[in-house]
Amino acid sequence: MNPVNVGICGLGTVGSGTVNVIVRNQSIISARTGCAIRIAQIGTRSGNPKCDLAGIPVTRDVFAVADNPDIQILVELIGGTTIAKELVERAIANGKHVVTANKALIAEFGNELFQKAHEKGVSIAFEAAVAGGIPIIRSLREGLSANRIEWLAGIINGTGNFILTEMRDKGRAFADVLKEAQALGYAEADPTFDVEGIDAAHKLVILASLAFGMPLQFDKVFTEGISKISPVDVAYAGELGYRIKHLGIARKHDHGVELRVHPTLIPARRLIANVDGVANAVVIKGDAVGPTLYYGPGAGSEPTASAVISDIMDLIRTIAVGPAVRVPYLGTRFDQLQDYPILPIDAVYTSYYLRMSALDKPGVLSKITQILSDAGISIEALIQKQPWEGETEVPVILLTNRVLERDMNRAIQQIEQLDTIGQPVVRIRVESLS
Amino acid sequence: MNPVNVGICGLGTVGSGTVNVIVRNQSIISARTGCAIRIAQIGTRSGNPKCDLAGIPVTRDVFAVADNPDIQILVELIGGTTIAKELVERAIANGKHVVTANKALIAEFGNELFQKAHEKGVSIAFEAAVAGGIPIIRSLREGLSANRIEWLAGIINGTGNFILTEMRDKGRAFADVLKEAQALGYAEADPTFDVEGIDAAHKLVILASLAFGMPLQFDKVFTEGISKISPVDVAYAGELGYRIKHLGIARKHDHGVELRVHPTLIPARRLIANVDGVANAVVIKGDAVGPTLYYGPGAGSEPTASAVISDIMDLIRTIAVGPAVRVPYLGTRFDQLQDYPILPIDAVYTSYYLRMSALDKPGVLSKITQILSDAGISIEALIQKQPWEGETEVPVILLTNRVLERDMNRAIQQIEQLDTIGQPVVRIRVESLS
Repeated sequence: MNPVNVGICGLGTVGSGTVNVIVRNQSIISARTGCAIRIAQIGTRSGNPKCDLAGIPVTRDVFAVADNPDIQILVELIGGTTIAKELVERAIANGKHVVTANKALIAEFGNELFQKAHEKGVSIAFEAAVAGGIPIIRSLREGLSANRIEWLAGIINGTGNFILTEMRDKGRAFADVLKEAQALGYAEADPTFDVEGIDAAHKLVILASLAFGMPLQFDKVFTEGISKISPVDVAYAGELGYRIKHLGIARKHDHGVELRVHPTLIPARRLIANVDGVANAVVIKGDAVGPTLYYGPGAGSEPTASAVISDIMDLIRTIAVGPAVRVPYLGTRFDQLQDYPILPIDAVYTSYYLRMSALDKPGVLSKITQILSDAGISIEALIQKQPWEGETEVPVILLTNRVLERDMNRAIQQIEQLDTIGQPVVRIRVESLS
Repeated sequence: MNPVNVGICGLGTVGSGTVNVIVRNQSIISARTGCAIRIAQIGTRSGNPKCDLAGIPVTRDVFAVADNPDIQILVELIGGTTIAKELVERAIANGKHVVTANKALIAEFGNELFQKAHEKGVSIAFEAAVAGGIPIIRSLREGLSANRIEWLAGIINGTGNFILTEMRDKGRAFADVLKEAQALGYAEADPTFDVEGIDAAHKLVILASLAFGMPLQFDKVFTEGISKISPVDVAYAGELGYRIKHLGIARKHDHGVELRVHPTLIPARRLIANVDGVANAVVIKGDAVGPTLYYGPGAGSEPTASAVISDIMDLIRTIAVGPAVRVPYLGTRFDQLQDYPILPIDAVYTSYYLRMSALDKPGVLSKITQILSDAGISIEALIQKQPWEGETEVPVILLTNRVLERDMNRAIQQIEQLDTIGQPVVRIRVESLS
């Protein structure tokens, strides 16, 4: 079989890794697919790539790659949603298959891009867009295809998980660890994207669409970051047998779909609670299979390249025998996608971790428990500490049963109005993931 | 698209689950593949299946299913390697695709079955043969296809993992937990297959062939069971920061491949060390992606059905557009498989946990350490306990560096010849899995 001609646009971390792995593993790739990958052209403005370009034609104009008639598969590794979007549209219009690692592009513009690709009969593959090297797209779309997916929950931002792991292991504060993460190159100078859950929301919406067979609805994801998590909450969570993770959660109900990213207490014995450092992991609950978990590096040069190249190889294996779109973009056939409503966060049921600062006086606890009880909220666990010498306030920590967020908001408002309660109530959602 | 006609042979636990899930999730299956699955015939001698057979023709002669001209895909869920083998051969000869959950059949006869299927241009899919509902075959063959796989290690027998988990959690003895596992239906009346590692060896050899691109070589797997693991070793391992798991390990070197199933100490903080109960998990180390882990139910009715049906759906998606064998049976193309030599166990390097019973006399420890040192073995950790009141022997526990098994055997022989050493030395291999 003739080599397949691939054009790579973008030669940053992932682009360089992709070139390196293709060159290094060429013989394995051929033995597996019966066909070599030929990097026919690279489009980049990067002057100093971390790979050997020996003999590969390079252009500074990425659109030249999309217009190159020799190229069958365009690999978009530029990132962002401006040039990248135009480039992918041009490639599709020219009848090329697209492989991309761009979660923002798929999450925000996937619906229209898939529509265009569908009309042209070309493929858009995006294994690398979620959870880096973990083959999670393939697992959802093919491995678990027999299942009605009930929910999924993932640690899908490595930066956030690194920060939370360090906070737990070493009792450090958020801001302190963030600074270290920035120095190590795990976090950007502007960390908002990672620590406020936007990056995770991009990935979550892709996973949810694959899981439930619905169009992408990025603007409806609820996001809450980890910047307000304090070391005492990490410690109390531990005392209660839990760990705090920044989770993306999607759950399907008859009346709609939950899509939310927020800090979450998980029982310490759950496998995903033990996923530490920059690693990613996703738990998927199918009706037939039960829960399965997928773990690995969620970012990085060669891990992401691994996913990009697996998509190229999949395309080679597919176009060798027939039309390119063997598996629908979102797992479910285009005309069968269902536009389920996304539930607002106050219509979601979860358990809660509450921490409040109460005056050390008789009757305080009974007022709190009365408010919760009146709201139909029961207490599953409680920690009340002795006040420190000279302190007049004591921390009260509660775990509640599952309750509607709207009801919890109301109860917390009432608790905060008590004159025996010092500061705003700290509230973190709890999931058993069972 | 017309429904695809499937024949199911065997209606035990997995067969019934397969019928139930196909019937229950028919609308999802159609939305995803564009085609319904029609169970055209069932071959079974089971009089009392755990599924509703409403309207499905049933025959007691499984070969009638293989000969039924309407049937495109034969699903073999009988188990064993006698009738199942004949049946699969007959189906292939008749030009039918085969889906099977039969690890023994694939591990022991896969090479000849793939050869026959290859000649006929039909597919043999076996996602359900390894690790039940975890899509591990697909992940290795497609998700990680860009990688040179360096090693993999798996908890691939749920019964054994349940027993080891109970031993650790409750300090119970092997025989005691085995009895409970048998009562719960997790273990067979004859548990040899599970606890001596034969079942795990079947799965390991399949994973290794997929990982390294080599023919199946079941008879060369080294296996050691867990029946001799004692509660004190579980406890000492914990004290040293390790857990004992029954692992299947495959590792590729330039000079050959390790294929071994044995009890193994793993650092407690490794994710796979936290896989408890009947669950399965596999860690795969690729050169580009690094380590990834796949976790889920390794057996059971609907988890296994999930894998079986994912294979049927994959076939539907493939035969709709072209020839059935899109991905080679073992991931690598038939003519590119390499028959690597399998290393004998005494040519393998691992670290060791050693426990010996020594007379409580001066100089005993120095003799032991001298023997190890003379053999080039260094000690990474050591526990020596005080003797109990009235006891003359003390337990000495050692962790060593990585050493050739042949050298370790010789050193242990010498230690056992010391007159200050009471019983045979207990030895468990240690892997860092990093």
